[in-house]
Amino acid sequence: MSPRIGVLLSGCGFLDGTEIREAVLTLLALDRLGAEAVCLAPAGLQRQVIDHGTGKEVLGGARDMLAESARIARGEIGDVAVASAAVLDGLILPGGYGAAKNLSDFAFVSARATVHLEVARLLREMHQAGKPIGAICIAPAVVAAVLGPTTHPLLTIGDDPGTAAALLAMGARHQTCAVTGCVVDPTNRIVSTPAYMFDARLADIALGIERACEAVVAMCGSAKAQGASS
Amino acid sequence: MSPRIGVLLSGCGFLDGTEIREAVLTLLALDRLGAEAVCLAPAGLQRQVIDHGTGKEVLGGARDMLAESARIARGEIGDVAVASAAVLDGLILPGGYGAAKNLSDFAFVSARATVHLEVARLLREMHQAGKPIGAICIAPAVVAAVLGPTTHPLLTIGDDPGTAAALLAMGARHQTCAVTGCVVDPTNRIVSTPAYMFDARLADIALGIERACEAVVAMCGSAKAQGASS
Repeated sequence: MSPRIGVLLSGCGFLDGTEIREAVLTLLALDRLGAEAVCLAPAGLQRQVIDHGTGKEVLGGARDMLAESARIARGEIGDVAVASAAVLDGLILPGGYGAAKNLSDFAFVSARATVHLEVARLLREMHQAGKPIGAICIAPAVVAAVLGPTTHPLLTIGDDPGTAAALLAMGARHQTCAVTGCVVDPTNRIVSTPAYMFDARLADIALGIERACEAVVAMCGSAKAQGASS
Repeated sequence: MSPRIGVLLSGCGFLDGTEIREAVLTLLALDRLGAEAVCLAPAGLQRQVIDHGTGKEVLGGARDMLAESARIARGEIGDVAVASAAVLDGLILPGGYGAAKNLSDFAFVSARATVHLEVARLLREMHQAGKPIGAICIAPAVVAAVLGPTTHPLLTIGDDPGTAAALLAMGARHQTCAVTGCVVDPTNRIVSTPAYMFDARLADIALGIERACEAVVAMCGSAKAQGASS
């Protein structure tokens, strides 16, 4: 059976939602690996809307996270509130400021970040079920905010010292990683890759995301076996 | 030198703008081929805004084509009005309803379609300069509306009889094509691939787009040689 991998989106555009290219490359890598992608997003309004031409905030232009994420998902998307570890074999969080503005408030308060309640619940469920979690770009900050204090996951956000220090402050460990690589925490079953944390070529970002998706899918089999023995 | 390939966007989301995945896969294929992608879009408002969660039109929610396209382009985008064949070695149009609603009105009037003035100008310039044009998904309809009556290009939109008939009515020729393939018109230097004209796997759509981009980039060398001899 194909593993079912949740892909948790947070809008559509790297300045106020999901980094579009990271999301598409995740969906492509999962399809090539024979996995089924299940797009998810939180319900409710984005924290901000940014004009991606000017980089400036658009006031009064509220946008809904699910509706915007559906642009990437081609309409096939579910509310993260009704998703559970019982129906997913793995979960991947692409990056973009949406991870740090909508899934959490890391963009505003750094290491004091809190995470969207349903996102935090799903991350805890996945971890407790021994099911793999992938985090791309800045999304490891969301994982650190939820799991850092209790499980001290090994994560990467590339090589940015300030962001790495924030992850440490949340209880996570950090390992520097090239854009084409990924960091695997086998104990916690968490995979991360820096992607657009670097100003890198798209082909190199694709390579890092492919490797991260491979690692997540490879862990699905053993996670399912673990589930079956309980 | 890397060939410079224009990638002409029309918003961000397949129901009212550019098909996001087709655009990203085009950018990825071009980067892997060593080409430089130059993202372009028309200025002005989209014809419609569609809620991609419900599929319904959002009234009063005007969105700007350049600003929305900039979400895919990560802010690095130019107005098609200031683009010219003099600075591009090739041009690729991803699909999505944006090609048929914003770049043209094909979605509303089919074979009687007219094309955005600056888009039509750029397509004619590229064709007259012998520089290759790629068209993905429904975008061949834009090419047919501009070049069909005079040059009778050979195009594909997959295997949909109604859309193929509309292309014929605009003066183009049509060849059925699988999602993983592309159709090349060597005389007119036009390449097309069906992509999401089929309800296909993303991996297969990626293969068709890769092949189309390869064909466009391969033509860039000879187009430049032609230009040098004039």
